[in-house]
Amino acid sequence: MGGTPSSEQSPPPVGSPDRFAADPAFAVHEGGKLVVRPTRPIATVADLALTYTPGVARVSSAIAAEPELAHRFTWAPRAVAVVSDGTAVLGLGDIGPVAALPVMEGKACLFSEFAGLSAVPVVLATTDVDTIVETVAAIAPSFGGINLEDISAPRCFEVEERLRARLPIPVMHDDQHGTAIVVLAALRNAARVVGRELGDLRVVVSGAGAAGVACTKILLEAGVGDIAVADSRGILHTGRADLPPVKRWLAEHTNRGGAAGSMVAALEGADVYLGVSGGSVPEAAIAGMAPGCIVFSLANPIPEVDPEMAARHAAVVATGRSGEPNQINNVLAFPGVFRGAIDAGATRITEEMKLAAATAIAGVVGDDVRADHVVPSPLDRRVAEAVASAVATCAREQGVTR
Amino acid sequence: MGGTPSSEQSPPPVGSPDRFAADPAFAVHEGGKLVVRPTRPIATVADLALTYTPGVARVSSAIAAEPELAHRFTWAPRAVAVVSDGTAVLGLGDIGPVAALPVMEGKACLFSEFAGLSAVPVVLATTDVDTIVETVAAIAPSFGGINLEDISAPRCFEVEERLRARLPIPVMHDDQHGTAIVVLAALRNAARVVGRELGDLRVVVSGAGAAGVACTKILLEAGVGDIAVADSRGILHTGRADLPPVKRWLAEHTNRGGAAGSMVAALEGADVYLGVSGGSVPEAAIAGMAPGCIVFSLANPIPEVDPEMAARHAAVVATGRSGEPNQINNVLAFPGVFRGAIDAGATRITEEMKLAAATAIAGVVGDDVRADHVVPSPLDRRVAEAVASAVATCAREQGVTR
Repeated sequence: MGGTPSSEQSPPPVGSPDRFAADPAFAVHEGGKLVVRPTRPIATVADLALTYTPGVARVSSAIAAEPELAHRFTWAPRAVAVVSDGTAVLGLGDIGPVAALPVMEGKACLFSEFAGLSAVPVVLATTDVDTIVETVAAIAPSFGGINLEDISAPRCFEVEERLRARLPIPVMHDDQHGTAIVVLAALRNAARVVGRELGDLRVVVSGAGAAGVACTKILLEAGVGDIAVADSRGILHTGRADLPPVKRWLAEHTNRGGAAGSMVAALEGADVYLGVSGGSVPEAAIAGMAPGCIVFSLANPIPEVDPEMAARHAAVVATGRSGEPNQINNVLAFPGVFRGAIDAGATRITEEMKLAAATAIAGVVGDDVRADHVVPSPLDRRVAEAVASAVATCAREQGVTR
Repeated sequence: MGGTPSSEQSPPPVGSPDRFAADPAFAVHEGGKLVVRPTRPIATVADLALTYTPGVARVSSAIAAEPELAHRFTWAPRAVAVVSDGTAVLGLGDIGPVAALPVMEGKACLFSEFAGLSAVPVVLATTDVDTIVETVAAIAPSFGGINLEDISAPRCFEVEERLRARLPIPVMHDDQHGTAIVVLAALRNAARVVGRELGDLRVVVSGAGAAGVACTKILLEAGVGDIAVADSRGILHTGRADLPPVKRWLAEHTNRGGAAGSMVAALEGADVYLGVSGGSVPEAAIAGMAPGCIVFSLANPIPEVDPEMAARHAAVVATGRSGEPNQINNVLAFPGVFRGAIDAGATRITEEMKLAAATAIAGVVGDDVRADHVVPSPLDRRVAEAVASAVATCAREQGVTR
């Protein structure tokens, strides 16, 4: 075909100055953050003949005769698809599948680092619920778990529900349940710090998207007595005519007193503020909460409540911010949840398994609990192990295993 | 959630005798053959803040504004999906997606070992052409190339054609084109051994499935003068009323003399036998071929023509068998083809790129060509590099790049 060296496109020399050099985040992303490698070398003809043909045919034949052997002789049980359509990425919103890839790669790195699982980013060229469900169902035999990520509400609820019903492997939308698990863990320990029981707390949840819905549900399951959930139009109550199904469900299962009005009004005398919405909350509203109150302000990168301001009024403050005390970071939950579910051969992730995960995370803090230490560090290697063990035990006790 | 150690399922102790211990292929497959790992460690809070939030948001934002940056800052360009529905796996046939997984994992190992690419097995819970096409198109933004594998004919032709038309990345059905490229490389060198030109050879192709069709097409493109293709009912000719579209095309573009009758009859005086069908050929048929004839008998694990028998009559013999001389192994083609296409930013794999790949493979043998050395060893590390370089140069010359 001919061709000369001069016809080739030369990449810029390594280390050459470019417009991304000033930000180390770009250097960390150069060439991507993941790699797939064989677990064993292929150095000899014998290696080749065992890893590939003809040896592989004997393994495939055995699995064809006895499908359960795939759990032992393929990588699939330990492979997790990190699936996103790129519609609700971090604080960036609907940036599409390709721009979402670095986030999914990062998630896959964390699955590897904290749980020893092989995770594969799968970003989708569709935002249609039916197509997402059909696509994930079609590729599901390749994987041992499906982590749904950064899919916007309310589509995320239907996607997760339909895939959970359809697939015999763990499926979890992390923006919902990862957040909810860590919030519950943090609230358990915050309640200890202030000497309260979950059942006595009055909680205001600001935000009724993926995280707000899941946090509210897990707090209800954990026995939190009184929760009011607010969306951008104010407190959800059964008298509101503008509520889609998920918010209607929340209105029916929260807000004991039937309060209407604004989120700020609901904060008067409340014990807990949980912000999963963005926006900002005036200082007067935080100042008007009950003595010894708890503020979890999770919007990223800018919390709804400035943490320094919150500290003037609240006994415990947590944010989603990296490198600060009490960081509510999903990495405390998802690696161990999937690892435990997979270790146990769980066919789904149940509410009880999520509650067990939250208890395990809170338990790692143990007697070291303080106002600025209600959750472990996101780098604490003990967490994923404790979560995996608790989740696996729960799955076996519930019998939701293969 | 409680639970005691005794409630946990213990895996069998490592090294315990089991029914798979006698076959080392199973040991090589224990736990799967692939792993996904981060390219950089995540050991500190700073690592976490760059690999994941908040640093990743800056990278995602940059890609959202300028999608071309995904080629530099994500893994996707170097990630290849190895997609199969498990309908035509090795010599095993339709064993389904899960039993096909070890083969796809093996393929992914070879992509890594020989081309430094990250390949991901994607086995499908469907055999419907529309669903396969929609599924692969939906996940395509996650990958830089699509290797279709072990999808039965004639569906494989339509699946590949539709995906090639739809996706802006390299798509190749390896059972067709990987085989065809290596067969052409081997035939170029075999012709040198016997002192013949491709244009003067009369070739009989036994088999009109995925490999037979692709081999015939590439041999026609390379200038082979006279080809007769046989399916199980005999030689394809325009007078046959039983031909589906792909075979009709072959009948119209081969068989100059308009021969009818059996494959064995066609072998009388032929220069080349190419078996990609299975079954067996009687010795008398091989004995009746032209003096100095060439026999490529590629059925696995049992060649159509016993190689020892063939050696009594033919000047050059090749098989698909592992560890023997002249092994026609796709691993000589696919790693370098995808690597070269990806290096050049090719948007598709053209016929010219495949021809260039075959020439490059033949060229690695160079002046060392002998009757028992018409293709390089499948472990020869120079091959993928030579193929990648030739394919990339061709792609740039043709201008089929981003």
